[in-house]
Amino acid sequence: MNPAIIVVDMLRDNFKREANLPITSEALRIIPNIKKLLNQGRRMAWPIIFACDSFLEEDFIFGGRMKPHSIRGTKGAEVIQDLTPLARDMVLEKRRFSAFFKTDLDQTLRTLTVDTVVLSGLSTHVCVLMTAMDALSHDFHSIIIEDCCAAHKREVHQAALDLYRNFGLYPLFRILSLEDFLREC
Amino acid sequence: MNPAIIVVDMLRDNFKREANLPITSEALRIIPNIKKLLNQGRRMAWPIIFACDSFLEEDFIFGGRMKPHSIRGTKGAEVIQDLTPLARDMVLEKRRFSAFFKTDLDQTLRTLTVDTVVLSGLSTHVCVLMTAMDALSHDFHSIIIEDCCAAHKREVHQAALDLYRNFGLYPLFRILSLEDFLREC
Amino acid sequence: MNPAIIVVDMLRDNFKREANLPITSEALRIIPNIKKLLNQGRRMAWPIIFACDSFLEEDFIFGGRMKPHSIRGTKGAEVIQDLTPLARDMVLEKRRFSAFFKTDLDQTLRTLTVDTVVLSGLSTHVCVLMTAMDALSHDFHSIIIEDCCAAHKREVHQAALDLYRNFGLYPLFRILSLEDFLREC
Amino acid sequence: MNPAIIVVDMLRDNFKREANLPITSEALRIIPNIKKLLNQGRRMAWPIIFACDSFLEEDFIFGGRMKPHSIRGTKGAEVIQDLTPLARDMVLEKRRFSAFFKTDLDQTLRTLTVDTVVLSGLSTHVCVLMTAMDALSHDFHSIIIEDCCAAHKREVHQAALDLYRNFGLYPLFRILSLEDFLREC
Repeated sequence: MNPAIIVVDMLRDNFKREANLPITSEALRIIPNIKKLLNQGRRMAWPIIFACDSFLEEDFIFGGRMKPHSIRGTKGAEVIQDLTPLARDMVLEKRRFSAFFKTDLDQTLRTLTVDTVVLSGLSTHVCVLMTAMDALSHDFHSIIIEDCCAAHKREVHQAALDLYRNFGLYPLFRILSLEDFLREC
Repeated sequence: MNPAIIVVDMLRDNFKREANLPITSEALRIIPNIKKLLNQGRRMAWPIIFACDSFLEEDFIFGGRMKPHSIRGTKGAEVIQDLTPLARDMVLEKRRFSAFFKTDLDQTLRTLTVDTVVLSGLSTHVCVLMTAMDALSHDFHSIIIEDCCAAHKREVHQAALDLYRNFGLYPLFRILSLEDFLREC
Repeated sequence: MNPAIIVVDMLRDNFKREANLPITSEALRIIPNIKKLLNQGRRMAWPIIFACDSFLEEDFIFGGRMKPHSIRGTKGAEVIQDLTPLARDMVLEKRRFSAFFKTDLDQTLRTLTVDTVVLSGLSTHVCVLMTAMDALSHDFHSIIIEDCCAAHKREVHQAALDLYRNFGLYPLFRILSLEDFLREC
Repeated sequence: MNPAIIVVDMLRDNFKREANLPITSEALRIIPNIKKLLNQGRRMAWPIIFACDSFLEEDFIFGGRMKPHSIRGTKGAEVIQDLTPLARDMVLEKRRFSAFFKTDLDQTLRTLTVDTVVLSGLSTHVCVLMTAMDALSHDFHSIIIEDCCAAHKREVHQAALDLYRNFGLYPLFRILSLEDFLREC
């Protein structure tokens, strides 16, 4: 296994106290586990990619009930201080859910001879899942670390994982606890 | 609303009696509704796209427990006879889950001034959902017609829909019954 | 070297006598060489891809002085009879100049462990060149076989090749005569 | 006309005195004209995009005679001081020749209702030309401002432009002097 760790959307705007977002409390809970995952990644010198929403105010996706956030170039689109990327980590601006959508991530991973994408962050059923599926589509093994991910509701996080636990692409696609993943490394 | 209908993976290989696939019986049930949807689309002269798995034997995704199927150029990758595309329909070979992945579908839809993608077919939580999400990513409204879609198990189909019924991108993304959709047209 | 041969736009619409296109006479001249190239490819069991313009009538590119041609689904968008693809060859519909633009060609080539793209067809300075450049962009070696390519004017063909003979990406990118290429194989 | 200006690869590494690159003296000559173009763009509040090579050391394209340069995250991959982007300009990291290759530029331009891409920078026959061609492929009008572009040799710059002056996609694609372009605005 030649993995890269992707940390999805652990951004200031998702942790803004005053916004009172339902996702914030769930997201806070996974920080310690993401740190453990990153420690392992750094010990092993795996590539670490922070995939970060980076929208324009005018973006189509803000035409519904979702409010503009994580705007390109703003403080709110930066990784939270607790997980601040190191100089050798990569920060990847993404325009939509998947970290592969209109980015060079697939090429970067191939160039670094990565074969497995290890996923953590927010939110389980949207950006994490879409990135995991796109990783498969781009011919990478895909592992979602379940206790390193969160959604705005615990049930939604759980239901999303349960939906794909028995997915036909097993074992190219897997859902593992951090403990089980670390045991494999 | 300027919609296009996408019929996902209603392919011979998914209906092969001798394969005894769990998805077949579920898939058979939605054919009458897809026909109604297509009738409406043809009455209104909406673009109709049959998005069809079109894999290579050597494809990465067959490296797990999923068996090779819907191989490019084979009979099994063709749309089932019951839904045979008309000359003016489009047949789009797709290499992975989403009908937008490495295809020109986004450009085709824009060229035809489509603003809304209406989804039917197989399977709800994989190719239909990934196409719906990619439609959003490409700035199209996305509507999943729930009784025109199926998965290998009724519960999986249902759980997938329930997971996104309350999705933050509402009303850019919606899940509707065929009846409700037709009432809107 | 693990090559694939790409034959670009050797399509009926470019050979239509009644259209009296300047490219036709130039294109006729390269058919024998392309046949020799294909023979070599078939002897060696290299992948052979016919990359074929496949436009919509409504396409943006027809908004200037270029007339609609090679329309998806029409006879005119088919490979000429002289070069008719065999069952094991691939026919790739392309929507714009480059055979990689919004297609799965890069993934197909990687899946088949191809590392070098060998280019022939029409026209040298547009679809052939853009495909060669995109091949490089996708991390494939790129070889234009100069006497297997043509443009609407001999001078344009020549000028295009001369422009890139000394290109900085040599030897990842090369321009070879058929004879020199065959000697290397 | 609803244009965006793209400034291609006016980066420190291309102006490094000690490297003694043939392109540097040519590139220095176009700075005043690019400034005039940017002034016009700012007066008119057109989007301004600095498209910047942003490579990895390990990139495939460095496997030939081209030496590693414009490495992602380094000073050398930054826009030269003379043209320093303003806060409202966009800086787009590109991984290969074209500014559209594996980036969200097409979506950004559509979101900003741009219909015409106006090109300046380095080098005429590679990154500028490939970006212009990809702009067409993505359904944007494309204008190369000839005296705002340069290559490592004056003749190469000239030959590249001459090759496409009479291109079949005229007037969707045009080559204009700065003066002629400004007169049109």
